[in-house]
Amino acid sequence: MMEIFFKPKSIAVIGASGTPGKLGYVIVKNISDSDFSGEIYPVNPKSDEILGYKVYRSLNQIPGEVDLVVTALPTPKLTVSTLEECAKKGVRAVIIESAGFAEVGGEGKLFQEQIVDIATKNNIRVMGPNCSGIVSRDIVTSIYPMTRKVPNGNVVLIGQSGLLAAGMASDIVENESLSINKICSIGNKCDVNENDLLEYFGAQKDVDVISMYLENVADGKNLTKIARKVATRKPVIFLNGGRTEAGAKAAMSHTGSIAGNSRIVETAIRQTGMIKADDFTELKDFAKVFSTQPLPKGNRIAVITLAGSVGVVVSDLCAEYGLELPKLTPETTDSLKELFDTPVANPVDLYFSVTKIGFTKTLETTFPDAFKDPNIDAAVLILAGFEYTREAVQKKIIQRIVKEVGKPVVVCMIVGYNRFKNVIMDELGKELPVFPSLISGVKALSKLCEYGIRHHKNALKGR
Amino acid sequence: MMEIFFKPKSIAVIGASGTPGKLGYVIVKNISDSDFSGEIYPVNPKSDEILGYKVYRSLNQIPGEVDLVVTALPTPKLTVSTLEECAKKGVRAVIIESAGFAEVGGEGKLFQEQIVDIATKNNIRVMGPNCSGIVSRDIVTSIYPMTRKVPNGNVVLIGQSGLLAAGMASDIVENESLSINKICSIGNKCDVNENDLLEYFGAQKDVDVISMYLENVADGKNLTKIARKVATRKPVIFLNGGRTEAGAKAAMSHTGSIAGNSRIVETAIRQTGMIKADDFTELKDFAKVFSTQPLPKGNRIAVITLAGSVGVVVSDLCAEYGLELPKLTPETTDSLKELFDTPVANPVDLYFSVTKIGFTKTLETTFPDAFKDPNIDAAVLILAGFEYTREAVQKKIIQRIVKEVGKPVVVCMIVGYNRFKNVIMDELGKELPVFPSLISGVKALSKLCEYGIRHHKNALKGR
Repeated sequence: MMEIFFKPKSIAVIGASGTPGKLGYVIVKNISDSDFSGEIYPVNPKSDEILGYKVYRSLNQIPGEVDLVVTALPTPKLTVSTLEECAKKGVRAVIIESAGFAEVGGEGKLFQEQIVDIATKNNIRVMGPNCSGIVSRDIVTSIYPMTRKVPNGNVVLIGQSGLLAAGMASDIVENESLSINKICSIGNKCDVNENDLLEYFGAQKDVDVISMYLENVADGKNLTKIARKVATRKPVIFLNGGRTEAGAKAAMSHTGSIAGNSRIVETAIRQTGMIKADDFTELKDFAKVFSTQPLPKGNRIAVITLAGSVGVVVSDLCAEYGLELPKLTPETTDSLKELFDTPVANPVDLYFSVTKIGFTKTLETTFPDAFKDPNIDAAVLILAGFEYTREAVQKKIIQRIVKEVGKPVVVCMIVGYNRFKNVIMDELGKELPVFPSLISGVKALSKLCEYGIRHHKNALKGR
Repeated sequence: MMEIFFKPKSIAVIGASGTPGKLGYVIVKNISDSDFSGEIYPVNPKSDEILGYKVYRSLNQIPGEVDLVVTALPTPKLTVSTLEECAKKGVRAVIIESAGFAEVGGEGKLFQEQIVDIATKNNIRVMGPNCSGIVSRDIVTSIYPMTRKVPNGNVVLIGQSGLLAAGMASDIVENESLSINKICSIGNKCDVNENDLLEYFGAQKDVDVISMYLENVADGKNLTKIARKVATRKPVIFLNGGRTEAGAKAAMSHTGSIAGNSRIVETAIRQTGMIKADDFTELKDFAKVFSTQPLPKGNRIAVITLAGSVGVVVSDLCAEYGLELPKLTPETTDSLKELFDTPVANPVDLYFSVTKIGFTKTLETTFPDAFKDPNIDAAVLILAGFEYTREAVQKKIIQRIVKEVGKPVVVCMIVGYNRFKNVIMDELGKELPVFPSLISGVKALSKLCEYGIRHHKNALKGR
């Protein structure tokens, strides 16, 4: 029953504050600024009104039912007593944002055990403690002020790190770099964990991609079982924090994660067909590729370049990441040969075509001709930060062609002036996956192909 | 005698043009805009004046001596006859920028052979053909208009790709992303090749780092011999284009490079202690790290972070790239313990310190204390794109501390708003190596440590 967290009819914020900047203020403001249309009940023993909402002295004074409680209280003790009040009120879901629980050990651990105890006995689901909760179109419980509404996107991020999930959330939403559906920060996960969310989002039709950052797993066996099922339906990208001894040591002091199950996780990733990311950039980059591009049926790549040398290096990288550069069909090479000073090959070097018919025309003829070739499953398109590239981006020429051809593409930016490069990265980057280096683009595409090939095989088996 | 290319007293441009936009115009303009203080002789049978310079009908009508000739002529045949004139005039160095030689095969190959023949008989050194020549403070022969003067930096780039060397050159110089000394585009290298330049720049005191992109090597044995000597004195970074079968095939159609010697090159890189880059971003990134940071004596890294999870992932990456995260000394942990809510460890999590004493104060106390620790050789500093980070960058706080501590650092940007991120990347990036991902930063630092350790060992042996 995760639904109640994401689609409650009423929310109470315990520890709400009328002082801008305070966490209890930001949370109310974020919920208020979201599309949440239910009842908002700020709870504070000393205030009467916060952001126009009537404030209640305590949870039990709220007249109606409360579906979800969000707490941002100064001490674990207060949180425990709040949970007892939740039980009395019949609340079914609680997000505990405060820290000071299991992650600090000692007494904090005992407080967390009390919370689990109350929750279990009273059938309450708890997200956290030590988390930022949810960032979505409908609800934002994050402690970072949001400057923009979350799009009704198709990507879910699940993170075990409060600060990062919060910082990353505002980053991604503000910069529109990913089409986010929801971001969940699950902290110490004393109850709600990755398995609950993976199962829930695995079944949600509007979610196409799930990206997770975890420093430990609650239940490896169950994860393997659920992930195997979900990963055949949609890509699950996994960044395993603490996968080395050094990382596990750091994770222990960060979230109190017990070292030693990282090997289980690495095995689970391999066996279930999840996609392994190595850092946060990859976690986001891979999600971008998977959420914007169709799945290829194979790994036969056309490399489209303006500079021969870049074509050479991309060819090397493709080979190193398991991608193939097939020959184009005679039909394609014949149709293109007038626009080439050397025999038409793959990498497809657009340089001569650009000098002959200009960049825009080249994009409209030479590029799609090569890209459509039946020998080709996907393309790496190299762009440079020049004035004419900016024009093509702003006139949506590249975006339109990629859509028309209907095959996956990754764009790599190489050289060029920053003043154009940034515009291109950002503007084009809102629709297509654009990478600042060849390595990152080719690696991301290799993940897409790997998953696409497996997906296609499974589909054939399923017939 | 490479000196004549870089410090000629007089330059003639054959094929000079008075029409803005034409290659023969851009070359004269670029030389004119550089700090070149010798004589400039444009040669064109039909013009009288170009950009204020007296134009000569032919090379032999130039009254004085000509040290260096730059040609941008429409046909290989004209280039050959120009070379004959050069011989008569006693010119000792020629840069041939035009294409249409060995790289197109057939007749072009024969023209190139004629050039080599004339050059050898008359003791002329030739750079090119099919190249962009030199980009430096004193001379710019590139066909890309330069918008800014080349700094008197300490990095040399040598590239076999005309377009890229030219595009990359204007990119780097305009964006001030690398402290360039010279960029050389050597094209078909019918005479002057990487070995000549490696030997020359290896001996130049103002050059600290040499980065090379090559699609083949002229003489592998000689390269190994020279590189072994140079690489003990200064870092040589090598991007080997065509290191896989697919890449070699692409290189063949690009520069007519003969496939098959790429294995020799890979062996040479390993044996000589050159630093291997995998794409152009790494070629530049590694150069940035080596040219701005001191060499560490070991691989013991402090990870300085604002988010625990980022510390975890950097720890993983450090382990995967052969770097160690030692404990800090008791002196350091004692002096810092009041600024930490958990025991002071490595990764050093500044979060609590920032909430307690603010970001700037944390940068001025907590960060340098950990960085100075005698157990630490180098640091990975994680920054986020926030307002306070921008302030610290613009007040040069980070730059000053890094300088004072005197140990190498790489900065990785993680999360944060683009409007700050770009400022930080660009402004801080002018002085320190700043990376957009954890992987790229850690990888670059691992290369620095690897070289530093070897360098230190050699220095001890040399005693």
